[in-house]
This record gives sequence, C-alpha cells and structure tokens, in this order.
Amino acid sequence: MSEQDPGPVRVLRADWVVTVDASDTVLADGAVAVQGGRIGAVGPAKDVLADHPGAEVAHLRGHVLMPGLVNAHTHLGMTMFRGVADDLSLDAFLARLLPAEGAVLSAERVRIATLAGAVESLLAGVTTALDMYYFVDEALAAASAAGLRLLGGPVFLDATGSGAEPVGRSLEAAQRWLQRHPVRPGWRPVLNPHATYTVTPHHLEEIRDLAERHDAVVHVHAAETEAEVASVKGAHGRRPVEHLDDLGLLGSRTVLAHAVHLTDDEIGRLARTGTSVAHCPASNLKLGSGIARVPDLLAAGVAVGVGTDGPASSNDLDIFAAMRLAALLHKGVRGDPLAVPAAQVLRMATLHGARAACLDDELGSIEPGKRADLVAVDVDQPHTQPVYDPVSTLVYAAGRADVRHVWVDGEQVVADGVAVRCDLAEVAAELAGLRQIVLDAL
Amino acid sequence: MSEQDPGPVRVLRADWVVTVDASDTVLADGAVAVQGGRIGAVGPAKDVLADHPGAEVAHLRGHVLMPGLVNAHTHLGMTMFRGVADDLSLDAFLARLLPAEGAVLSAERVRIATLAGAVESLLAGVTTALDMYYFVDEALAAASAAGLRLLGGPVFLDATGSGAEPVGRSLEAAQRWLQRHPVRPGWRPVLNPHATYTVTPHHLEEIRDLAERHDAVVHVHAAETEAEVASVKGAHGRRPVEHLDDLGLLGSRTVLAHAVHLTDDEIGRLARTGTSVAHCPASNLKLGSGIARVPDLLAAGVAVGVGTDGPASSNDLDIFAAMRLAALLHKGVRGDPLAVPAAQVLRMATLHGARAACLDDELGSIEPGKRADLVAVDVDQPHTQPVYDPVSTLVYAAGRADVRHVWVDGEQVVADGVAVRCDLAEVAAELAGLRQIVLDAL
Repeated sequence: MSEQDPGPVRVLRADWVVTVDASDTVLADGAVAVQGGRIGAVGPAKDVLADHPGAEVAHLRGHVLMPGLVNAHTHLGMTMFRGVADDLSLDAFLARLLPAEGAVLSAERVRIATLAGAVESLLAGVTTALDMYYFVDEALAAASAAGLRLLGGPVFLDATGSGAEPVGRSLEAAQRWLQRHPVRPGWRPVLNPHATYTVTPHHLEEIRDLAERHDAVVHVHAAETEAEVASVKGAHGRRPVEHLDDLGLLGSRTVLAHAVHLTDDEIGRLARTGTSVAHCPASNLKLGSGIARVPDLLAAGVAVGVGTDGPASSNDLDIFAAMRLAALLHKGVRGDPLAVPAAQVLRMATLHGARAACLDDELGSIEPGKRADLVAVDVDQPHTQPVYDPVSTLVYAAGRADVRHVWVDGEQVVADGVAVRCDLAEVAAELAGLRQIVLDAL
Repeated sequence: MSEQDPGPVRVLRADWVVTVDASDTVLADGAVAVQGGRIGAVGPAKDVLADHPGAEVAHLRGHVLMPGLVNAHTHLGMTMFRGVADDLSLDAFLARLLPAEGAVLSAERVRIATLAGAVESLLAGVTTALDMYYFVDEALAAASAAGLRLLGGPVFLDATGSGAEPVGRSLEAAQRWLQRHPVRPGWRPVLNPHATYTVTPHHLEEIRDLAERHDAVVHVHAAETEAEVASVKGAHGRRPVEHLDDLGLLGSRTVLAHAVHLTDDEIGRLARTGTSVAHCPASNLKLGSGIARVPDLLAAGVAVGVGTDGPASSNDLDIFAAMRLAALLHKGVRGDPLAVPAAQVLRMATLHGARAACLDDELGSIEPGKRADLVAVDVDQPHTQPVYDPVSTLVYAAGRADVRHVWVDGEQVVADGVAVRCDLAEVAAELAGLRQIVLDAL
C-alpha cells in the first residue's frame, strides 16, 4: 500500500486496548482506527466508531489489543540449531556449535531457518526483531515474505567464528550493502560487530563511522559473561562497556545485547549516551552467564528491550515467555515483589525494544501516527480468566499460543492463529529437513 | 472401566516415547499398549504392534508421548483470584486477598473455579494435581468431572485465615471425611495443615496421627519466606523443617510446599525421612520469597516435584512453564549451565511429583503396570523443530499449547487440544462470572 493512497479505514475494536502510551492508558471497550498502515485514532470504541462511520469494523470480543512485541536481540537463522547443544558448559556448547555452523551455513539454509523463525515470531506476537546473523539478504527476504519487520545487516567478526560470513569482514562490502539498504520509514539498517573480544578496536571505530554515515543501528554483544569481561580487561585494560564508550561506540543508535555484568559507572555511561540494552533472561540463565541488573538499568533511565537470543541457547523466540521471565526473575533475585511490574515489562518488550531499534517514534505503542503493528490476544480462556487487569493477564497468564491476530504495517499477517502468508506445515518440514544436515556436521 | 474387565488393547504409537523410566529411555518410533486404564507394554513400535495384533492403533505422527505432568502444589479454587493482587508486597497481597477470599468463597464458586483449573491443567498436560483448598468435596467432584486426578482433603488453619473452611478446624470432621475417602488405587487422601506458623504444635501432632491411621498424604507449606522462618523460630525455638521433624511430621507421606529456606541440616532431615518437596519457582520469584536450593535437594536424594502454587500468586497452572523456569533458574543462579538438565526437570515434574503424592508406584513414568496417564505433545511446529533430543524439545521449546491429547487412567480427556468432557467456552464464562463477585468483595 503506497503512502500516497492511504486506502480505507478499518477499525479494530477489542474488550481492552493496552496502548503502552506515556500514561499506560488501558481502554476498556477500546478501538483503533487503521489507515494506510498507520494508526489513525485510538480511544473508547464509541468515539472511534462515531468518528469513522462506514469503516470496516472487526470486533475482537474477549481479546486484548496490544502493540506488537519487539524481539530486541536474536539470531533467527539459528532456529536450525535449536536444541542441538543443551545442558552443556559454554565451552562445550561453543565447541559443538561453531564447527557445525561453519560447515552447514548456506544462503538457502539461512533462508529456511529464518523463514521458520519469522513465522514462529509472528505466531507469538512478535512483529519486529533485531537480528544478527549471516546471509543477511536472504534472511531479510525470508522475514519479509512472512511479514515480519526484521532489522539486520552485516556481521563483523575478526576472531574465530564460523567463517561463513560472505560480507562482514569487508568494510567496503558493508558500505555497498548500506547503500543498497538505506534508512526507510519503519526500518533501519543494522551493523553487527559481534563483540569487543572478537572485533578489533580499529575495526570497531570503522564500524562506528560507517554507522554514523548511514544512520545505522549498532548491535553488539557486550558484557555477557564474567569471562568476557576479564578477557577484554586483559586485552584492553578496560571492561567491555568502558571500551565501547572510549571508542565512541555508545550512543542512541547502539544496542548492547545481554549487558549482564555492569558496574554502576557503566550503567551511568549507558544512561548518559542513550545506549539501549537487549535483556535476554532465558539465554543468560540457561548458559549460566549471570543475571542482568535490569532494575538498576531501568532506574537509571536506560531503555531495556527484551530479547530471546538465538534458538541454540534460549531455545525459542517467545517474547511472552521472556517478558514473564524478566518480570519474575528480578523480583526473586532482589527479594522485591515490586520490582519490574507487569506494565514495566510490557513497555520493555514493546516501546523499549522499539527504542533499541531506533524506531520508537514509529513503533512500540498504540498511538496516532505510529505504524499499525498490532497483536490481538484471546484472553477468554480458562487459563486467562478472570481478567482483573489486562496488563497483568498479558504478562502473568497469557502466552504465545493466545495470540490470534497480528498486523504489521496494518496488514494482517496472522489471522485466527494462522500465518497468512505461509504454509505452516511446509515451513516446519523445511526446518526439520535441516536436522540431518546439522547432525552430519557435528 | 472396571478392573475386572480390562477391555480391548489400544496402542499409541508416536515419533518418540519419553518414558522417564530408571534409564531415561527414549524410544524413537515407540509405542505404548494400554488396557484397562493401565500401561501393558512399552517399546519400539514394531515390537508392540507385533505383540498386539488387531489392537486399535493411534499413530501420533510428529508427537512425543510422555507421562502426564504432576502439579505437586496448587490451590485450584484460586483461579477465581487470578491476577487480582499482582505486583504487590506480600503484606499488601495478603491484605487484598484474604478478606476477599473470606467473603466470596462458597461451595458453588469453588466448584466453578476448580473446574476451570482442572480444564486448564488438563489442556496443559497436567494429569495429577496435589491441591490444598476449601470445599474439598466440591473441588474433587469438579476435577473428577473434567477428568483430572486431583488429590485433596481437609485444610487445617488455626491462625487468621479466610474463615471459610467448613471442615478443617475439626479433627472429628476430618476423620469422618477420611472414612468416606479411603486410599484407593491411583488416589490418596490428603491432609493439609496450612503451615507451622498457622497450625499449633498439638494440632500438627493430631494431624500426624490421623494421617498415619488413614495412610494420607501430609501436604504443608514450609519455609516459604525468611519472615516465616524467623517467626517459627521465635515462637518455637526452631526452624519450620526442624519443627516438623521434631513433631514427627516428616516422612515419606509428607510433601513440603516451597521449602525455599533450608539449612544443610534440614536438607539432610528431608533426605533421611524420605520427605518430598514441591518446588514452585514462579510463585517464589513473583512474591520475592527467595530461590529454593533445588540442586542441593536433588543431590541429597530428595524428591522435588514441580508446582505452580495457586493462580493468585503464579498466575497459571502451567507445569511446562514451571519446568522450564526451574531448569533455567538454577543454572543462572548457580552460574552452572549443567545444573538441573532437561531430563532431570522432566523427572521432577512427573515421577518426583508422583512420589510427592505417594503414587510413584502407579504414576509418573511410562512403564508396564503403571496407570495410563499420558500426554501427546505436537513437536512438528516451527517453534519446536528440529528435534535433536525430544527431552530438550519438551523442556526448552515446547509449551502447554503444544499438548494435543491427554489420557488419564487410559481414558482420553483431551483430544486434538479440546477438553473432551467440558464445554470450554462455558467453563471460561462461568469463571469470568466470578470476577464481579470478587471485585465487590475487595
């Protein structure tokens, strides 16, 4: 749908509209008017309906309408490695995974794995994901085919890795890629330096300049493990976040994946520079990496999106589960039942994720003028009733399987729990078909 | 189906059968023969089929067949309070909940809430639950109507509570109840002294004797919070588990809900006496109660079942989520990715739960002679493929919504994701109907 012809108005009416606006407005019997892929109006159903006579109306009884979830850190192509290296030490995990990854990756296999990851994401209410993986053009095309808003770009990895990246080691190739993929409404290119222990300082500075010139997001693993912090400190005399700051990599277009091991000073640097964090609680717990200081980051004003990490470590792409895990974990670890309440974690998984992707002016909440990335969750089930507070219901009782309808840019991509643009059985079968190829490479 | 006429043999064949037997046997293309509510045979499909010519065969392609999950600690009737008191301190939570509970409880409302909880449980693959709530006869009847194996019995509460219990304060009434509800195959009565801070030592000793005479399970909250430990120590000069031990309440028919705050000596007492624990990670985290020493309990040989607690605190009855949470949490807290691996947590949520209910000779694994409590999980989905290890897939990728078929005592109670014996919309609507009643009582 072109921006010039906004097309007809459609009104989505639901028992509750959870807006995630600045006042955390929740509308009982609310409605959203959508036109040309954008949100035209939000309000009580009677007002929105009165203002849009003749509009096509979808009445979502028993549903909560919420902003699309944002997966602030993932590696969708790694769906092919889901569960291949569980219950191992980090060393054993990497020793098992990396050679297999190097041996099996191809454009076609990344396409299959990313398509499956995109479908999984959409069915779970994720409308935007910040991705870091190889064969980015194939990945972006696959996600786009499914209808997912995937932000990705070249990966940079100087130290040992899978060796499969056809672009990343070349700044020139990355620059050409950025010229072909400029910022556009609702999307930004991403530069993915892997981490401070795998990319040289000089290379990081070049990436910084390239990102600056092309207004790209810088998406980098940082401070995931104690061992990484020690290693970077040993190599560069400073901790990963200090190192990134000193190299000029922090800023409002930068998102740090994990950011588990931070000093107070580093949290202050993130806040001052407007750097975002992608909190990946399932991955951090499963790999025994540690527990991020999320309440401290939030208190300092840092935007903390929620990520799943890749399915080799987490093992799914379920932001509902990650939201609930984040809400529970920090209460328990702090012994504070008031930590990370439901509305806050929902904001993290929507608006803060959009901030991490530098798209918070376009995504992350249901407000007029924003893109119509919307999710309708069926809460009329035994496991979700009664609904005393729909935000509590979303975070503490509902789950990915309660997602019934999903819209991206106003286009419905999930209807009645079915991915509109794909054949689910075919997607699952293609993904399953990669199993033997991976096993043969182990 | 009577025990005398075992009826025809049915064979369930699945891509994988995860047995949770002593060797953690997982059969690829396995089958289970079921007759008269019991498991007759388990083995490779070709063998089971050859041994049962003419049997009715259900071929569950793309499914894992696993033992029914056991919810080792819950309060099903509290589905009516789901989400009514979230993100509050424990004091504020109790101040909000207890008066409402006292005001609204009735036999009919507990029936409605328990029926909804039973349906929610079955749809999520839970076939057995250990319950602690009021109006036990109505609760047991409601669960039985849905097809859930619910173990319950009188609640004892001397200190401030909701005041709604019509039986519990009277030992005589409990004795009469036990006479009407003797041990029977696949079921045991339960005595539910609320906790050591709410039931007097003399009363606890009487409950102990009553349980002994009737071979009943003793199901008691213990060591949930630091404050409770301090309170019991102040009142009785010893910690809750020491107190229970000194009163003779520990033993192989006793299950402690929560058991978060334990000394090494207390863990030793649990191990020596064969006392079980019901680990409720979501509730413990959400209320900021602390983090149970699960790896230490398991290392000491204590059976650790998995529970959800009641939906006022946890807020659903999802043992798949609780399993995954337990597997992740203890890795993260210990910094040990080898802690609580997938096979161990699956054993906790099945066989250890059955042990907590004193039914491990009849339930908790797929072995000949055991009751046919079985769950078929569809793993042929984008979010579960590829399947490298079906146990990993069950714990780290699958969820309640992937449960397609459930059998209790060999009777199918969930078919194609639908509760066979109930009208789901009616159950949800009845539960939703309690909302205003609860709100009016707040």
